Amino acid sequence: MSYTAPIRDMQFVLRELAGLEQVAKLPGYEEATPDVVDAILEEAGKFAGEVLAPLNYSGDQQGAMWKDGEVTMPAGFKEAYRQFVDNGWNAIGAEPEYGGQGMPKLVVAAVNEMWKASNMAFSLCPLLTTGAIEALVLTGTDEQKAKYLPKMIQGTWTGTMNLTEPQAGSDLALVRTRAVPQGDGTYKIFGQKIFITYGEHDMTDNIIHLVLARTPDAPEGVKGISLFVVPKFLVSEDGSLGARNDVRCVSIEHKLGIHASPTAVLAYGDHGGAIGYLVGKENEGLKYMFIMMNAARFAVGLEGVAIAERAYQQALAYAKERLQGRDLGDGSGPVPIIRHPDIRRMLMLMKSQAEATRALAYVVAAAHDAAFRHPDADERKRNQAFVDLMIPVVKGWSTETGIDIASLGIQIHGGMGFIEETGAAQHLRDARITTIYEGTTGIQANDLIGRKIAREGGATIKAVIGLMRQVDAQLAQQGGPDFAAIHRSLSQGIQALGEAVDHVVKNFSADIKSVHVGAVPFLKLFGIVAGGWQMARAALVAQKKLAAGEGDAAFYRTKITTARFYADHVLAQAPSLAYTVVNGAAGALQLAEEQF
Amino acid sequence: MSYTAPIRDMQFVLRELAGLEQVAKLPGYEEATPDVVDAILEEAGKFAGEVLAPLNYSGDQQGAMWKDGEVTMPAGFKEAYRQFVDNGWNAIGAEPEYGGQGMPKLVVAAVNEMWKASNMAFSLCPLLTTGAIEALVLTGTDEQKAKYLPKMIQGTWTGTMNLTEPQAGSDLALVRTRAVPQGDGTYKIFGQKIFITYGEHDMTDNIIHLVLARTPDAPEGVKGISLFVVPKFLVSEDGSLGARNDVRCVSIEHKLGIHASPTAVLAYGDHGGAIGYLVGKENEGLKYMFIMMNAARFAVGLEGVAIAERAYQQALAYAKERLQGRDLGDGSGPVPIIRHPDIRRMLMLMKSQAEATRALAYVVAAAHDAAFRHPDADERKRNQAFVDLMIPVVKGWSTETGIDIASLGIQIHGGMGFIEETGAAQHLRDARITTIYEGTTGIQANDLIGRKIAREGGATIKAVIGLMRQVDAQLAQQGGPDFAAIHRSLSQGIQALGEAVDHVVKNFSADIKSVHVGAVPFLKLFGIVAGGWQMARAALVAQKKLAAGEGDAAFYRTKITTARFYADHVLAQAPSLAYTVVNGAAGALQLAEEQF
Repeated sequence: MSYTAPIRDMQFVLRELAGLEQVAKLPGYEEATPDVVDAILEEAGKFAGEVLAPLNYSGDQQGAMWKDGEVTMPAGFKEAYRQFVDNGWNAIGAEPEYGGQGMPKLVVAAVNEMWKASNMAFSLCPLLTTGAIEALVLTGTDEQKAKYLPKMIQGTWTGTMNLTEPQAGSDLALVRTRAVPQGDGTYKIFGQKIFITYGEHDMTDNIIHLVLARTPDAPEGVKGISLFVVPKFLVSEDGSLGARNDVRCVSIEHKLGIHASPTAVLAYGDHGGAIGYLVGKENEGLKYMFIMMNAARFAVGLEGVAIAERAYQQALAYAKERLQGRDLGDGSGPVPIIRHPDIRRMLMLMKSQAEATRALAYVVAAAHDAAFRHPDADERKRNQAFVDLMIPVVKGWSTETGIDIASLGIQIHGGMGFIEETGAAQHLRDARITTIYEGTTGIQANDLIGRKIAREGGATIKAVIGLMRQVDAQLAQQGGPDFAAIHRSLSQGIQALGEAVDHVVKNFSADIKSVHVGAVPFLKLFGIVAGGWQMARAALVAQKKLAAGEGDAAFYRTKITTARFYADHVLAQAPSLAYTVVNGAAGALQLAEEQF
Repeated sequence: MSYTAPIRDMQFVLRELAGLEQVAKLPGYEEATPDVVDAILEEAGKFAGEVLAPLNYSGDQQGAMWKDGEVTMPAGFKEAYRQFVDNGWNAIGAEPEYGGQGMPKLVVAAVNEMWKASNMAFSLCPLLTTGAIEALVLTGTDEQKAKYLPKMIQGTWTGTMNLTEPQAGSDLALVRTRAVPQGDGTYKIFGQKIFITYGEHDMTDNIIHLVLARTPDAPEGVKGISLFVVPKFLVSEDGSLGARNDVRCVSIEHKLGIHASPTAVLAYGDHGGAIGYLVGKENEGLKYMFIMMNAARFAVGLEGVAIAERAYQQALAYAKERLQGRDLGDGSGPVPIIRHPDIRRMLMLMKSQAEATRALAYVVAAAHDAAFRHPDADERKRNQAFVDLMIPVVKGWSTETGIDIASLGIQIHGGMGFIEETGAAQHLRDARITTIYEGTTGIQANDLIGRKIAREGGATIKAVIGLMRQVDAQLAQQGGPDFAAIHRSLSQGIQALGEAVDHVVKNFSADIKSVHVGAVPFLKLFGIVAGGWQMARAALVAQKKLAAGEGDAAFYRTKITTARFYADHVLAQAPSLAYTVVNGAAGALQLAEEQF
């Protein structure tokens, strides 16, 4: 159950596909030189492999423990978190103005993948802190920033996001938590929030909650939600901790996975009101949450990549070691099960899809950096449109794929995969939340076809399809059966995607329910084709290197084979998905509810 | 988390698709009249819903407990098992000669689906007993039959199958357990067996183990394996229990799911040797095991159907009750989430695939009855060939689909699906073993393409494709968009399946590894198309009833819509799968092991 950060693969994607060199030329990212990035990856890989990975299984088995409002983390987590903070890992992506290292999102993505792969439950703590930091950076007052940001960026205090209530899951219009102004600029917060990741724990001496609530005269629905900062302990002018605030952890959930990540029910104001401070403007809380949510959605998408990588490493090790059955060709045996064609097929499914989801996620991270820092406004805008389009795909497709891959990891282990001590089952249990939190796959898909495609008549996605066609044209110029196969599947995939886009754009307004039946199949289609686009780019880079006699030939040949496998086994699904997008509505909408 | 046996749907399949009327005409099955079968289904449904279903979640949470070699079942299981036996449920499918009721396999399949759906962990106990009974019926001596069968059929004693050893999972050639003849006709058994379902428990006072072992002079490999009966307590001439045998439960496994089903490690002969009795002939144990295994594989396939049904019922209830979001059409809200198109899509995926897997399984069960009892030898042979062909599909496809459906059930629950108390997660955890035990999906698929197709040049599957074409021709004669859509997908599916069969038959000998890469995609393709064939038959029956103005019109219209959904969303995948079967080998086989 060890984890070795796939640094060579990461470097390949960073440099050859996502354009690290270009990112490092953006103003403000000049420190992200190849040497610095290599050093960061190596150190992060060590920390992930040596400190976090060994706590993954034990953390799952022990779980976070609730007693009398306090949460005790599993053995080793507190110490690991202290080291994480001491080594500066919490700060690498944050604003230099408040003590962060300001590394580009592209580099942070690779590092974060390592935390998620080595110990997903642990990684959720800095993930949520990062979200809270972003909200304060964007909308906090100078005083709020000075008070909270340095310690949150360092990691001395952690942060949370409090959206969900029992009656208000994905539908924030139903939020009922109240914020009553006290006349002194503060508010008193009353209400119950559920599903609060790291809402309580014993790794730091303060927790900064960001809470959605309604002021007394707020409009109904999502237009009446405001954002408040509610520290667990109030913070004095001098930065020292003051009184305990009126927010208590009532319980933590008994979950399928991520047992070491405490999922808290938080009660605000049971003893007179929790003191909260407005963040930004009243009634604009939802807007701020959406900004944070994009980052969080990208981060959850990376969890899909990370679990896929971890599950693959474990299944591969088992497949090379486990002796069972005879070689189908020469009859020798017992042989390691990796010799059996179906085990190879499953390993290649894991490997190729882990690589495809990673490539797409990193490419989107690089675009995010350009959208933030590029000197040219048009370039920023173009990149931002790409990021906005792709976030739901990175989130939805990578996580759905991550679950499939974790499940394949169990399958490769056979009966041992079902035994908890093997550790393969934990990956599936942990992965299973990723298609749900920060917006289900259905919500991502609705966002994709509605706000990201139909609203602009498909302009951005059509431009992306244009980029795909350029790559496909390059494929057509290569020789040999591998490139022929990749080209065949990619052209069919692009064709299928184009038809599906036309269908969505043409029918969205007139027949909104029908188009929404195809939303998730559309998201999967787009993900698969976009992944195929990146795999094709990887194969073309590899071919160029091989032709030039540069670098590690075995490594580059592997890239071409993996792209070919992906084309034949994954990208080949595109036409069927497009068929469902275009034709699938009637069967889904026809039944009356009582006919189910 | 309640369960209501889907009796109306079951009756539809039994009567309209699987030909219960014809089965009841077979000699020996005359008692299976419509009235008797209805009464059995109703009573079984009550028992499943009222006795077994309420123990499903509590059994999962408590789990079976091991202490000092004894296993204590979760609260309520012992009493439920006693009622199960008292009501005669253990005996309904067994030989009348030894006290069984001799109901056809078709009827038993429907009843067993209820046990599996209401409480899969419980249902494994009678499943394994049935396997042991079959082995003894087929190969036991008259004395063995008289001694063990009546009590096992009644359920007073349970049975187990002992195949697996730590080094011998799917590969029985590696079995090392020794059987040493004592000169008095008995053997002493020495060795360790793992993954023994209900290998120890406290629900009955004896357990009859069937054990694979090697005699001292046995040939190596699978040709040297013999089958032994090893009772936990020796049985005297008068049927009373004698000495405790030298078989001990060393531990039980800590598993992802089916926590209430004890999975035992059994040590034979640690204290002088466990007394065993040869079953059938020496060195023919594997053959006997294969006979039992076909029944067990069918039964596990039914687990896929059952869990799909249970997960669907739970998700449907939640989708009708949970209020979230606004209606996309008229903007009203909050509405029950079943109004959202993506929730409907997921519910229809669950519903249509549960129905498709059930229809195929019951049709195969009916063929099994005909293969066993039909007066005409050619009919028996034809039916047996169909059963042999379809068993790996019922096993592999239904279970893979069952896992997907259980996962969709979680997804429909959103965040609540990840909370164990909701019960949706248990279905996924329980389902996850079904693609592994009694032969993984890979093993089913290899059996399918090799022994069941290539070996006979595809004769049986081509005949089945011929039957599918007949149904498709009937579809073409119906009017309206639903039948047009079903026809379009079914013809494409049949076409795709035919191409894949030709590929397998043509290349199996010359390029065995390449063909095996496509084995699981082939199995899925065959399952999906065979399911589509049955759904099309259901739609045609429904159309006929509607045209004649017979029966419940809403029910029959639902069948047509469900078949149409299946065609557009599931059957539509067939061409892509065929593409992978035909083209997928190179990418999977190209890498050297060190390139992974």
